[in-house]
Amino acid sequence: MIDVVLIGHGNVGSHLARVFKNTEGIQLRQIFSTRKIENDAALEEIRTNRLSKISSKAAVYILAVPDDKISSISKKLLLKEKLVVHTSGSASIQVLSNKNRRGVFYPLQTFSKGTPVNFKEIPVCVEAHKIEDLLILLKLGNLISEKASKISSKERSEIHLAAVFINNFVNELYHISEDIMKKHTLDFDLLKPLIKETANKIQRLTPAQAQTGPAKRNDNKTIERHLEQLEDKSQKSIYTLLTESILKR
Amino acid sequence: MIDVVLIGHGNVGSHLARVFKNTEGIQLRQIFSTRKIENDAALEEIRTNRLSKISSKAAVYILAVPDDKISSISKKLLLKEKLVVHTSGSASIQVLSNKNRRGVFYPLQTFSKGTPVNFKEIPVCVEAHKIEDLLILLKLGNLISEKASKISSKERSEIHLAAVFINNFVNELYHISEDIMKKHTLDFDLLKPLIKETANKIQRLTPAQAQTGPAKRNDNKTIERHLEQLEDKSQKSIYTLLTESILKR
Repeated sequence: MIDVVLIGHGNVGSHLARVFKNTEGIQLRQIFSTRKIENDAALEEIRTNRLSKISSKAAVYILAVPDDKISSISKKLLLKEKLVVHTSGSASIQVLSNKNRRGVFYPLQTFSKGTPVNFKEIPVCVEAHKIEDLLILLKLGNLISEKASKISSKERSEIHLAAVFINNFVNELYHISEDIMKKHTLDFDLLKPLIKETANKIQRLTPAQAQTGPAKRNDNKTIERHLEQLEDKSQKSIYTLLTESILKR
Repeated sequence: MIDVVLIGHGNVGSHLARVFKNTEGIQLRQIFSTRKIENDAALEEIRTNRLSKISSKAAVYILAVPDDKISSISKKLLLKEKLVVHTSGSASIQVLSNKNRRGVFYPLQTFSKGTPVNFKEIPVCVEAHKIEDLLILLKLGNLISEKASKISSKERSEIHLAAVFINNFVNELYHISEDIMKKHTLDFDLLKPLIKETANKIQRLTPAQAQTGPAKRNDNKTIERHLEQLEDKSQKSIYTLLTESILKR
């Protein structure tokens, strides 16, 4: 049984709380949150709103807090020599206060409060300085996911960069296409099945195999017409750069 | 009963052939393809490899051929005053020879041969000059999909432009993130659940609601570090442009 204390109940924290609570072999001992946890009496019961009241009996303390709070909160903890980890994709393991044993427990997914996710499929990237701590984190990761693995801070920062491309930047392309549709009073919903299938295709094909369209087939007539259709300067630049990026391959 | 002849058995044609064959109210009379149709004896039986042998008895002739072949093939057809439509997202209705009644039957999806799709969910954009023809195409569209609607050539070209952003350009971002992962000998598969959830999120949230990440929260430290991590000039420019595009919102 792994005894866990969770610090934070935001996007990541609320999902971790749920999966920890429902997984055999994990005991969620306590959760720190300044706000009341609605709709979950069992969680609310183990909630504390004071860092000073956090139990010193757990095996792992998980900080599911914003990146810029990791350092200060880890310093405020009245714990010593315990295993304290953060859940950030981009923060280094060094950000944590060194009065405790440090580690990382990073679930590679985008979370929205209230939308359930299947943790079994989510890669969990773990890191620790000591081998015993690494084993504890791998064990915890393997209890909730089929894809827990050891990833260094350096590797994690590359993964996080790649994730910005396929998540934040992809979402910005959705936003631009919504702008285009709205401008011509067309319904963005028309594009949703295509959005879904574009992501599904990549589950079985490589990006190279999945590519189609005017840039891929070197169709300059269509590319020129598209650039004429676009009036917004920034949209034009993005179209040009991504078209060139495809053409170069 | 709508009598249909299908010209072409590529990515789009093969999917239309399957759904037409399996839909009550549609009679797939003939299919033109120069190549033998493997694994489907019923389709192979109604196949012809000569345009001159195409029946003149159908209500609709659907050209599922590459954009640059639409004009020449529509001219070669030994038909007159029949309803002949293409399936292209970007070609105008005018590209078709005017010796027949012209139209468009555009299923808004990315198709790969051999991967089944659920046509019920796919928007079908139809267009015709005559109201009677429009009604035939809407009826045909409604038989295979829940989302058939009248879309003009002008509107279709805007939809196609928006589709390039959410399909071709999104796929290029997948490709760049695969490059980043490979460069650091990391497994691209780690990102696949995130790719899927990014697309799923947009089915229920707007792009504005779904956005997260360093640009959204104005986290300049992370943005600068990411730009240092990227060595490729083109990747740097794409990162900068898309970050600015998010920051501006």
